[in-house]
Amino acid sequence: MPKKIRLGIVGGGGDSLIGVLHRVASHINDNYQITGAVFNPDFEKNKEFAEEIDVPLDRIYTDFDTMVAEELKLPESERIQVFSILTPNFLHFPMAKKLLENGFHVICEKPMTTSLEEAKILAETHKKAGTIFALTHTYTGYPMVRQMREMIKAGALGKIHKVDARYYQGWINPIIHDKEKRNSVWRLDPEKAGISSCMGDIGVHAFNMVEYTTGLEVESLLCDFNYLYEDNKMDVDGTVLIRMGDHVKGVIRGSQVATGEENGLAIAIYGEKASFRWEQEKPNFLYMMSDTEPTKIYKPGHAYNSEFSLDGTKLPAGHPEGIFDSMANIYLGVARAIRGESQNDGAYPTMRDGVRGMSFIEGTVASHKNGNVWVKVEG
Amino acid sequence: MPKKIRLGIVGGGGDSLIGVLHRVASHINDNYQITGAVFNPDFEKNKEFAEEIDVPLDRIYTDFDTMVAEELKLPESERIQVFSILTPNFLHFPMAKKLLENGFHVICEKPMTTSLEEAKILAETHKKAGTIFALTHTYTGYPMVRQMREMIKAGALGKIHKVDARYYQGWINPIIHDKEKRNSVWRLDPEKAGISSCMGDIGVHAFNMVEYTTGLEVESLLCDFNYLYEDNKMDVDGTVLIRMGDHVKGVIRGSQVATGEENGLAIAIYGEKASFRWEQEKPNFLYMMSDTEPTKIYKPGHAYNSEFSLDGTKLPAGHPEGIFDSMANIYLGVARAIRGESQNDGAYPTMRDGVRGMSFIEGTVASHKNGNVWVKVEG
Amino acid sequence: MPKKIRLGIVGGGGDSLIGVLHRVASHINDNYQITGAVFNPDFEKNKEFAEEIDVPLDRIYTDFDTMVAEELKLPESERIQVFSILTPNFLHFPMAKKLLENGFHVICEKPMTTSLEEAKILAETHKKAGTIFALTHTYTGYPMVRQMREMIKAGALGKIHKVDARYYQGWINPIIHDKEKRNSVWRLDPEKAGISSCMGDIGVHAFNMVEYTTGLEVESLLCDFNYLYEDNKMDVDGTVLIRMGDHVKGVIRGSQVATGEENGLAIAIYGEKASFRWEQEKPNFLYMMSDTEPTKIYKPGHAYNSEFSLDGTKLPAGHPEGIFDSMANIYLGVARAIRGESQNDGAYPTMRDGVRGMSFIEGTVASHKNGNVWVKVEG
Amino acid sequence: MPKKIRLGIVGGGGDSLIGVLHRVASHINDNYQITGAVFNPDFEKNKEFAEEIDVPLDRIYTDFDTMVAEELKLPESERIQVFSILTPNFLHFPMAKKLLENGFHVICEKPMTTSLEEAKILAETHKKAGTIFALTHTYTGYPMVRQMREMIKAGALGKIHKVDARYYQGWINPIIHDKEKRNSVWRLDPEKAGISSCMGDIGVHAFNMVEYTTGLEVESLLCDFNYLYEDNKMDVDGTVLIRMGDHVKGVIRGSQVATGEENGLAIAIYGEKASFRWEQEKPNFLYMMSDTEPTKIYKPGHAYNSEFSLDGTKLPAGHPEGIFDSMANIYLGVARAIRGESQNDGAYPTMRDGVRGMSFIEGTVASHKNGNVWVKVEG
Repeated sequence: MPKKIRLGIVGGGGDSLIGVLHRVASHINDNYQITGAVFNPDFEKNKEFAEEIDVPLDRIYTDFDTMVAEELKLPESERIQVFSILTPNFLHFPMAKKLLENGFHVICEKPMTTSLEEAKILAETHKKAGTIFALTHTYTGYPMVRQMREMIKAGALGKIHKVDARYYQGWINPIIHDKEKRNSVWRLDPEKAGISSCMGDIGVHAFNMVEYTTGLEVESLLCDFNYLYEDNKMDVDGTVLIRMGDHVKGVIRGSQVATGEENGLAIAIYGEKASFRWEQEKPNFLYMMSDTEPTKIYKPGHAYNSEFSLDGTKLPAGHPEGIFDSMANIYLGVARAIRGESQNDGAYPTMRDGVRGMSFIEGTVASHKNGNVWVKVEG
Repeated sequence: MPKKIRLGIVGGGGDSLIGVLHRVASHINDNYQITGAVFNPDFEKNKEFAEEIDVPLDRIYTDFDTMVAEELKLPESERIQVFSILTPNFLHFPMAKKLLENGFHVICEKPMTTSLEEAKILAETHKKAGTIFALTHTYTGYPMVRQMREMIKAGALGKIHKVDARYYQGWINPIIHDKEKRNSVWRLDPEKAGISSCMGDIGVHAFNMVEYTTGLEVESLLCDFNYLYEDNKMDVDGTVLIRMGDHVKGVIRGSQVATGEENGLAIAIYGEKASFRWEQEKPNFLYMMSDTEPTKIYKPGHAYNSEFSLDGTKLPAGHPEGIFDSMANIYLGVARAIRGESQNDGAYPTMRDGVRGMSFIEGTVASHKNGNVWVKVEG
Repeated sequence: MPKKIRLGIVGGGGDSLIGVLHRVASHINDNYQITGAVFNPDFEKNKEFAEEIDVPLDRIYTDFDTMVAEELKLPESERIQVFSILTPNFLHFPMAKKLLENGFHVICEKPMTTSLEEAKILAETHKKAGTIFALTHTYTGYPMVRQMREMIKAGALGKIHKVDARYYQGWINPIIHDKEKRNSVWRLDPEKAGISSCMGDIGVHAFNMVEYTTGLEVESLLCDFNYLYEDNKMDVDGTVLIRMGDHVKGVIRGSQVATGEENGLAIAIYGEKASFRWEQEKPNFLYMMSDTEPTKIYKPGHAYNSEFSLDGTKLPAGHPEGIFDSMANIYLGVARAIRGESQNDGAYPTMRDGVRGMSFIEGTVASHKNGNVWVKVEG
Repeated sequence: MPKKIRLGIVGGGGDSLIGVLHRVASHINDNYQITGAVFNPDFEKNKEFAEEIDVPLDRIYTDFDTMVAEELKLPESERIQVFSILTPNFLHFPMAKKLLENGFHVICEKPMTTSLEEAKILAETHKKAGTIFALTHTYTGYPMVRQMREMIKAGALGKIHKVDARYYQGWINPIIHDKEKRNSVWRLDPEKAGISSCMGDIGVHAFNMVEYTTGLEVESLLCDFNYLYEDNKMDVDGTVLIRMGDHVKGVIRGSQVATGEENGLAIAIYGEKASFRWEQEKPNFLYMMSDTEPTKIYKPGHAYNSEFSLDGTKLPAGHPEGIFDSMANIYLGVARAIRGESQNDGAYPTMRDGVRGMSFIEGTVASHKNGNVWVKVEG
């Protein structure tokens, strides 16, 4: 294995949860070295945090534009190779665009952009750039999610009949039920958060999981939102009927007011021969059902799993994989792509996932607004 | 406790599963004595079966009409008090109607009728008759389902946000994927089975569970069916968006092609303060979730349960209640009603459940046919 | 199928839980008719209860001895064929003995006797009598327990390495922690309850389950009891090391002070090729594990199950079997035995189970008392 | 937070699983920098691996003794502060001893030593040294294990009645059943592996978990081993009765031939008021049971948890914690201890855990050998 890849980070300083997740994931397979960063727009805090985690101060920059400019002056052998963008959502697009235009690889937090229009522009930029772009649909990194994808690809389910995905959380309850809070929080302000709350933040993960595991595309959707209070009409809950071509239908359910649910992403895929059920909160248990045989429980680390699933498992069976391992697998995929190593299709979410995700989000809003009509999903 | 109730049975002879379920349920609480029957349209088989299960032959009749006529000649103190109708679906309506018109109580298998129109006529008949009519939505007999209903009534969830119910089975797979079978089986022939397969047979149970537990009414629905093959357009799968008034929305999911699912009825009810999750295949585990406290698992037989829930529990906690117990609870409710004993609301499903169920089924078909539009649910 | 079997009942009147369980079980497969009884030593209450459940009063007797005497005067074609003994423990032995000596079949509640000595005498009596004797180790009636037995017999686990069974309850807590209660309750009084509380009441079920499923015999045991308070030295908790011959060892764990446990009977059986795990509170889920394949979940009612397991399943897969079903299967086995129909070995627990059970109970006490030494299990 | 701690590593190079686990854990909280190492006794491989993971080559040493000698020459401000010992078992003792004698902190893989005698010597050395010594009983790092410990300390269970722990694996099956393999593998050779296989490797984790969570000490034990074949008498399975003082008893069950079990560490603790159940393979679900209230499921990251439990949780509830997080919490505890920061008792396993663990292992062997007698546990 060659030397570590030089990783730059924008955002994610201090107690940022997403910052921890990315740093740990970058370390897990010994592939990355954090080489430079703008952790924080406040230069003092930026430096302080860099010292705390031992990133050399000479590559800690005052702002994003300076960082790009200064790094470009360095010889390629020293220059940061890939940036992780962990900034507020509206900055993802301009930052990713500039980095791609300047020949950097990019790992971008979700949502990729704040509109489908931006997403398409970014896709164009990426096409010209020819560098690696990865979107952190983190949950696709779980070994058992990859096992589903591989087994479906190999025909284990036969023709798929139906897909049923859900992402339920209850976290927005204390906000939505408080009149002042719900009308001041950025999440529920379309100007700041974009056109959707529930579908934009979590529904799109369920959508991506559907396409990632089945290898099929959602062709059209019909959506009904719920918003609980008349004075705030951002979606905090919704159900999306989906059609995926030749008699394959399904449903994507999302909620941020599903009281008591924590991070309830789950998927069930029903095929002619067999079916899968998987839940994010018990990520190491994949259930395969059939009409004629006992249900089987697949777990990570066993030789009966596909190579792609095993690739993401570091310890023997029975040592629980968690969210860090899942994100680490995304980082591993990006590292191999940067090094030009061959690897499994699906090793990290791509620009295409980003564009389709934005198309899904905008589609749900359009369907709901126009009286629950069917809307096509592009990209 | 007074003497046993005289029970008459129509249908359900021989190896009939539904026959076993009703007989066992009628025995469980020592309330019923099978007094007369037409177990089978073939009189010889009818008598044979009666002998097998020790029902006196003098009350075994050649046919339904004779049975009604002969019983009416007996003094009231000997006459059959209540009939269980276990015949093919299309006979439910005329038999129930005649029985009600002649002053008998009725326990009727589901579906109550084959159309909403018939259902409304039966409801009128029942209103005039003033006797007991019970529809066997068996699953409402489970102690933990009753616990949900009681706690919701008492305000444990606060205002409800969202309801998510499903009933998934895979049993129609061997039929639907075989061209000859799918075009000859009565279940998928609208002339014989009525206008709906999946929603008519199982979706309606999920619908009933939603209304039974929440105490709310589904006001309108929007439905999309799936049928897998062009040559047979009966629904074998579908998703129904529902609206239940003041910002309460939800989804009912049904499938008969959900490979590997057995009898997957489940419900999740999300409220402002807390939520419930329950699954029919693990009927003794009721999960109550909140955003701030550990999830709680309610189980039958504990003093912390409501009276109504405990009423249906015969053994100490830890002795699994099964489907027989559940049906037995319905029979218990009917027995008490017949005896004029006071009891909890919801002790057995009523005519109103039947009418609303038919309205649901016809609504789903209408919504789907008309391009997935919203349809009102009556009754 | 021939006419119903004439069943006599001793004990189990009024609200007796064990009475309900036996009556329901006797009805479930349409095999028995309650023909005569002494439900209660108080003749008035006895008659009252008989009326309540519609047992003809002419076969309701003043006491057990009278009942036996009177029944013997009846022609065999009318005489009670089998008696269910549901009386307090110390009466099981004399009643069963007398019934067997007079040519009746017997279904006897557990414990069969109050000492191994009595058990051996009863076994001798039974041998001479040649009638059916069944002991209600109810849990052996579960379809998935029967599936374990059949698959083990067929070699599915290969040579067995280890058996681990437990029966944990918490119900004695409110008694044991109250000085007055623990020194007055009959359960903790060796004069009334026999020499053991925990092992005698529930440990012996776990012991029986071990022998029933594996087909192996426990050869010797070493036991350590716990009793919480110095002033009452009946076992309320204990662990039993067991040896089952050629390098097969295991452990049986019992407790009545396992706070929060309800009816926690469970077993794990580890073999060279595969293993089983099963829990009484989720009786429809049987887990089969191997080192190289996904764990498989067996459920009742599927064609992949053994004939013997399917025999006890009345409804399609997905309809939860409960404790009534389990007991009903024992009754079914007895009915067939009475009728001389051929049936699977293990269809109901026998005299031998009873003798071995008593030997187990006395063995645990002896082992503990003598300083945790190894004690042989006879029978 | 101050600068990162300088970490040295002995062993754990190349594909070593334990190497990955320690490196990731050291990174997760941004507390450590790998500063020097002897990853491999082969100097070329050692350097190669160092390059691969970007550890500067000037601190990569030819062997352990050289590393110690050279590091001691460096000024304290540059010197490695703490060493992780990941070498074969028999090297733990001499290496740990030398490091402690030279003023280094030590993180030592389990088993701490190969005998109780060595353990006691090491404890003496540690006492004199005054530096930090941590033993990697990794599973004590799980948030819900810490939650158990804190709640028990706070009296949530009342007086404890019984403890039941198990650690079941099946991994030794392919070795034990092959005559050649079982008589050549180092694990089953007492000269190489020490006196115990199952108890030494995994039983001791269950023992530590018992003492860690309850805060009680195992005073004495009685053990029975199983070894399957006469030609190899190392324990691959065993059950240990334990006594923990005033009427607290329990059982520790271990197996390496529990076919199909992966890493089945589990514990149940029964108290007068309530009880806990926890399983390592579903580490984020802690069940608290009582006789009178619904069972509660505690999960990481909620405000209802203790400070100590929350301290080890980096992401919001619903993001699964895995084995890396657990080990990372041990490393976090060591980092704070090195920095002299105050922290919760139980933040990492100590020398005392090591000595008691060795006493447990030797005790089980002595008990079994001497005919299953009671043996005291020291330390």
